[in-house]
Amino acid sequence: MSELRTILETTLKKLLEERKFMSIKDFLSTMKPSDIASTLDSLSKEQLPKLFRLLPKELAAETFVEMDSDNQELLIQSFSDTELKLVLEELYVDDAVDIVEEMPANVVVRILEQASPEMRKDINQILHYPEDSAGSVMTTEFISLRSDMNVGDAIDHIRKYGCDKETIYTCYVTENRKLIGTVSVKDLLLAKDDGTLISTLTEKNFISVNTHTDQEEVARVFSRYDLLALPVVDSEGLIVGIITVDDAMDVMEEETTEDMAIMGGMTPSDKTYIKSSPIELFIHRIPWLMILMVSATFTGLIITGFESAISKMVVLTAFIPMLMDTGGNSGSQSSVTIIRALSLGEVGIKDLPRVVIKEFITALLCGFTLALLCFGKIMLVDRMLIGNTDVTLLVAIVVCLTMNLTVIVAKVIGCSLPVLAKKLGFDPAVMASPFITTIVDALSLLIYFSMTKAILI
Amino acid sequence: MSELRTILETTLKKLLEERKFMSIKDFLSTMKPSDIASTLDSLSKEQLPKLFRLLPKELAAETFVEMDSDNQELLIQSFSDTELKLVLEELYVDDAVDIVEEMPANVVVRILEQASPEMRKDINQILHYPEDSAGSVMTTEFISLRSDMNVGDAIDHIRKYGCDKETIYTCYVTENRKLIGTVSVKDLLLAKDDGTLISTLTEKNFISVNTHTDQEEVARVFSRYDLLALPVVDSEGLIVGIITVDDAMDVMEEETTEDMAIMGGMTPSDKTYIKSSPIELFIHRIPWLMILMVSATFTGLIITGFESAISKMVVLTAFIPMLMDTGGNSGSQSSVTIIRALSLGEVGIKDLPRVVIKEFITALLCGFTLALLCFGKIMLVDRMLIGNTDVTLLVAIVVCLTMNLTVIVAKVIGCSLPVLAKKLGFDPAVMASPFITTIVDALSLLIYFSMTKAILI
Repeated sequence: MSELRTILETTLKKLLEERKFMSIKDFLSTMKPSDIASTLDSLSKEQLPKLFRLLPKELAAETFVEMDSDNQELLIQSFSDTELKLVLEELYVDDAVDIVEEMPANVVVRILEQASPEMRKDINQILHYPEDSAGSVMTTEFISLRSDMNVGDAIDHIRKYGCDKETIYTCYVTENRKLIGTVSVKDLLLAKDDGTLISTLTEKNFISVNTHTDQEEVARVFSRYDLLALPVVDSEGLIVGIITVDDAMDVMEEETTEDMAIMGGMTPSDKTYIKSSPIELFIHRIPWLMILMVSATFTGLIITGFESAISKMVVLTAFIPMLMDTGGNSGSQSSVTIIRALSLGEVGIKDLPRVVIKEFITALLCGFTLALLCFGKIMLVDRMLIGNTDVTLLVAIVVCLTMNLTVIVAKVIGCSLPVLAKKLGFDPAVMASPFITTIVDALSLLIYFSMTKAILI
Repeated sequence: MSELRTILETTLKKLLEERKFMSIKDFLSTMKPSDIASTLDSLSKEQLPKLFRLLPKELAAETFVEMDSDNQELLIQSFSDTELKLVLEELYVDDAVDIVEEMPANVVVRILEQASPEMRKDINQILHYPEDSAGSVMTTEFISLRSDMNVGDAIDHIRKYGCDKETIYTCYVTENRKLIGTVSVKDLLLAKDDGTLISTLTEKNFISVNTHTDQEEVARVFSRYDLLALPVVDSEGLIVGIITVDDAMDVMEEETTEDMAIMGGMTPSDKTYIKSSPIELFIHRIPWLMILMVSATFTGLIITGFESAISKMVVLTAFIPMLMDTGGNSGSQSSVTIIRALSLGEVGIKDLPRVVIKEFITALLCGFTLALLCFGKIMLVDRMLIGNTDVTLLVAIVVCLTMNLTVIVAKVIGCSLPVLAKKLGFDPAVMASPFITTIVDALSLLIYFSMTKAILI
């Protein structure tokens, strides 16, 4: 796909230089909005507005939505009031809100000035909901029907008002704005005759979310119930908007990216990697690196505390990385698994005891296997192959016992911390590899040196 | 949600004991298939078939699809041939395939015997495509229209054949099974009059995938173009099936879970965490733990190689965990970021030079900041607070220089390996924290001891 894009960009730039505007127009009309957007995003500041003006009205708006916010700003600055009004007219309210959220104050004022009074009201309403809530990702454009309409009326109603709505396939049956049920266009079309009353087709047992529901929960509801759209109601059960499945997919993608960033020890960023500058990457990465580095001081202190033991048996040092890494890896496995299960809603806070027992048994199995393998490795490689006489049988036993215990401790900590974080209202993803590793490192060294003192010295 | 489910389960079990079957029937009819499925999944083997038989035909099939494969098998075994036939009649082909894939051979034979000849043919066709390909997740039930039909004909056609199709909202215009374009029901409904020819409404510039396209790419296409359904064509451009957005969401979720498992150093599993036994968890976790443990041997060998240097200056040991962890964390940050960017299709193999430069600059910034902080920490904590006289200015310099270099090496390796893995046809997710940490650990120690030898000894 990216190969193709390069060719497209080269062709377009050439046509633009040769001022063959009609051909460009024809060319762009065959493309999908998101592909045009990524092509436009790669153009220079001078070329961008020129090319954008060649797009037909509707395609222009659809493309505009998909563009980078920097370029959206650039375009808005270059628009006349009339041009801005034309683009805004074609936008869905939720897309308009997304744009408004990214723009500086003076641009926002211009957008709100040129928006229709109705859209201005809707934008303000959506902006008012907390970030990442259902209210903040919904759109206010949906089809509502009355239950005393018949199928013929309903289809006429859809024909009349449908072209501005984000979806027509699920319609909402309301009574004084209170949501009573849903009717799908499939049911309308498959109804025996046009006189069938909407009330007989209404699915009263519908799923809805509240304006304050977290968007992650919204995505889960979509995937659990295979929905195309989901109504959003306020605390009194009045319908205030809908969320469509394409937006739910965006939320899923966004939440996964955010979770992965946090699990990798970074603060999440709204910008794509390619668009982020090294300074921006630095800002998102340095806090956790600093926190974790300072935390590793404790691990250092443990070593310092056992310095006399180490100086007597330097050979012990050689096993530190293996013990630390295996502990870290075992803990990461458990934490990653539980973080994902929590985020899919498979595991809840009340499952903690069950989770700990399962991880403990798994840890026993893993720990025993690894200790056995480690013992074999030490006897074969370190003693026989390398012939390191410092590695005595007792040293091997201490290392393997530590291995076994570390794996158990690591897995129990790795599975508990994400659940506890959730209970305390934090994002469980924070309790992933980097954090678990730091804790497990300290503990594995404590176990190692305590064993050494007890058995070897 | 899980609170509610517990209450539901208790109520149902009680009603079942009291043999109040009519009430149970009414009760279940108000629930959604996926909720009924999770309730049924929690029942005993004796109760399950009894309750399932109370479900109305269509709801029974929809619930069946959402159940665990173990329980699906149990139910099929308890079904008479007629009952099995009834459930199969209500299934979509793609769901039937999912079930067949999980069943043992004797159950598969029974399913194929009871399926209609057409469904049997379709199941066999889909089973024939490679795992995780578009062909393997598609359904063969879609609405195809001819371009010489008019809107009235098309709507009649949908009314006649629509009820068995997974979606009616996108129809496919074909000519001798060759896909010419798509028509949405929205366009049909909003068309001025019933006489409008389908050919004038057909979107010829449509997106399609090939039967062999990877399902991850399918999910990307859905999210890029905001589709509700995507046609799947064979190498000659003949339409063989469609994929609907709910299945694309499932693919997205499945691929994310798989990526996270791999990134956590595990082989991915089809089973949910709650359903996996400790033995199964062990089997998915132990291979990487063993590989990584054995790889850590090299890190141990590096330490052994520098044992004489260490025995002269045991104080050096105290900084090993901090250097190793910071290196590992820095590398993880880069690898996680790049793995996600690769999986979203934001970054491609050809972007490697650009990525390396960006990571290098970021690493310079991170490395310098961390080294500075580390220097301050050593001087303040280790020298002044703890008064460790072994920690000389030169030791501090060696540690901080190592820190700086390690971060740079870690970030460059962390960003390159996923891209190189992709180039070699491996899953980039393998090159995540556990793997990167093992490599970076060895390198950080090499840098550390080389510095020590050069500067201190």
